[in-house]
Amino acid sequence: MEQDYPFLRACFGKETNYTPVWLMRQAGRYMEEYRKIRSRVKFLTMCKTPDLAAEVTMQPVEKLGVDAAIIFADILLPLEGMGIDLEFAPGGGPVIHNPIKNRSDILKLRTIEPREDLSFVLEAIKIVRQEIEGKIPLIGFSGAPFTLASYIIEGGHSRNYIDTKSLIYQDPSSWHQLMEALDQVIIDYLNSQIEAGAQAVQLFDSWVGCLSSKDYEEFVLPHSRAVIKQLKKGIPVIHFALNSAHLLELIKKAGGDVIGVDWRINLADAWQRIGYDVSIQGNLDPVLLFAPPEKIELEVKAILKSTEGRAGHIFNLGHGILPKTPVENAIALIETVHRLSQKDGQN
Amino acid sequence: MEQDYPFLRACFGKETNYTPVWLMRQAGRYMEEYRKIRSRVKFLTMCKTPDLAAEVTMQPVEKLGVDAAIIFADILLPLEGMGIDLEFAPGGGPVIHNPIKNRSDILKLRTIEPREDLSFVLEAIKIVRQEIEGKIPLIGFSGAPFTLASYIIEGGHSRNYIDTKSLIYQDPSSWHQLMEALDQVIIDYLNSQIEAGAQAVQLFDSWVGCLSSKDYEEFVLPHSRAVIKQLKKGIPVIHFALNSAHLLELIKKAGGDVIGVDWRINLADAWQRIGYDVSIQGNLDPVLLFAPPEKIELEVKAILKSTEGRAGHIFNLGHGILPKTPVENAIALIETVHRLSQKDGQN
Repeated sequence: MEQDYPFLRACFGKETNYTPVWLMRQAGRYMEEYRKIRSRVKFLTMCKTPDLAAEVTMQPVEKLGVDAAIIFADILLPLEGMGIDLEFAPGGGPVIHNPIKNRSDILKLRTIEPREDLSFVLEAIKIVRQEIEGKIPLIGFSGAPFTLASYIIEGGHSRNYIDTKSLIYQDPSSWHQLMEALDQVIIDYLNSQIEAGAQAVQLFDSWVGCLSSKDYEEFVLPHSRAVIKQLKKGIPVIHFALNSAHLLELIKKAGGDVIGVDWRINLADAWQRIGYDVSIQGNLDPVLLFAPPEKIELEVKAILKSTEGRAGHIFNLGHGILPKTPVENAIALIETVHRLSQKDGQN
Repeated sequence: MEQDYPFLRACFGKETNYTPVWLMRQAGRYMEEYRKIRSRVKFLTMCKTPDLAAEVTMQPVEKLGVDAAIIFADILLPLEGMGIDLEFAPGGGPVIHNPIKNRSDILKLRTIEPREDLSFVLEAIKIVRQEIEGKIPLIGFSGAPFTLASYIIEGGHSRNYIDTKSLIYQDPSSWHQLMEALDQVIIDYLNSQIEAGAQAVQLFDSWVGCLSSKDYEEFVLPHSRAVIKQLKKGIPVIHFALNSAHLLELIKKAGGDVIGVDWRINLADAWQRIGYDVSIQGNLDPVLLFAPPEKIELEVKAILKSTEGRAGHIFNLGHGILPKTPVENAIALIETVHRLSQKDGQN
């Protein structure tokens, strides 16, 4: 039964026999099986071919024994339907060829129809659901409004977010207009994923940590909250922001059944700050997966201990698993979390 | 008299008639006068030519009216004397051609003799001191042990600090050995700067925010503390780490008369957390200097108000001023801080 999945139970703060665990970017380059497919198919093509997306989604499920699958996709996919010209340069990050600079660019953005513009994601979700039915649940996801806005404006990764913040500071009404357009896209996209079969959704606000808490509150929080509020009820929402030790209370305020935290902050401190009425996800430093298994075990033990056995912890890394991670260490991590958190086992 | 400089008074938590202000990287590319020199001389040559270093140090003093000068230099300069092959590639960041990978590399590092290896910095300090005597004080600086170690290991800027953290996790004793070598270099370097005439020193731990609070406490704090403890007494120490909202209490514990904070965290919250027995420096978002003067004024007002008139605030940006900053906005910032913080003026 769906309500028996440890991952979903933990999302709702219910007791589980062990701590459920999955890894952000668990379908990725650290796996040989993934690299094999990637070597013959472009990244965007993989995303847009439901059979391939489903196949790489399943790879870590089989190899690692994680407690949830997450659909293979990219946070930038919904932008194409809005009229954004997106490319993943070989070996580099995403490049947007027509970044948005002003109000008139914003006015040209289109709304999307997920069942047309993103049918491949929905199709992949359906395939994966069939394959994992009765085993583990499937997570859908989207970039959060700020993170998508920052890509659209900067045209790719950014160091200082000068253009994004300049729009915020110089033309706040256009900023809010852009964010509202993104809010609607994300709501439609995530609700379509849920309709297609996603049993939980994660909102990735990867780059919002560049903002002051004051700016987050004024320019981001209302939008992330609007998105979360308009998602279909009963489906848990995980709200994750990298580098957000200064934003935790505000992120909680924006919403989510589960708040994801990175490795910088102590998990126990973070949970105390956001309150025990929400679940928490995290927070091993991804770089720890390059360390020997004994060191990994010590760190897993420390994180598990810091929860004091409280229900509602989902184990994860504090950010996506890194491409050069030794796969055997990822396997060892999952096994270690399960072993050390077993309720009737020995710690 | 030295004790009348508002900047130095604020470092020691004493009352001042207005809030002193300077800008990290205030001698830099956003100034036409700087670019003019830089266009004909390489960056490292500028650092190593005392007359030029003194000249660019003075440029913002004259143009902006800041309350302190900071000697023009680079945090990586002390590494060359240790045997590190350093280059500043045109248009890029620093490159180290012989990064350190293991214990045997660490054992090959040399100690430095600042009066020989870094005589040009000391000479520049002496020149500037003569020029600003009786006007404003001069700040010396160094990279902190972690930040220098991360450059030595990664060979330049890094995204995930995989090699640095891997050394920490896999060979902690070698890590501490490397840090001890750096501690001594930094102590000698800063004390030499003080002897040459620096009236305050800032320790830049620019990249330490990538660490968890737990790792900071075990692998960094003892070293930063050892450095600060062994500096000449009576000279205020500013301890700054970017992106350190999760580390503030530990950074305070490591030491410093002034703790520098970036723009992410609310200044009042930060000061409350570190305690009012230390002064605080910060924390306008450098990107706000791209905004219109009215917006800058609003933000300055908010930061000044948040201190509730408490003595011991030094106004600064939350990180270095950005190369494309309009210089007139930097000038307006200094004027605004002075005007709005005047004790007998009107806010």
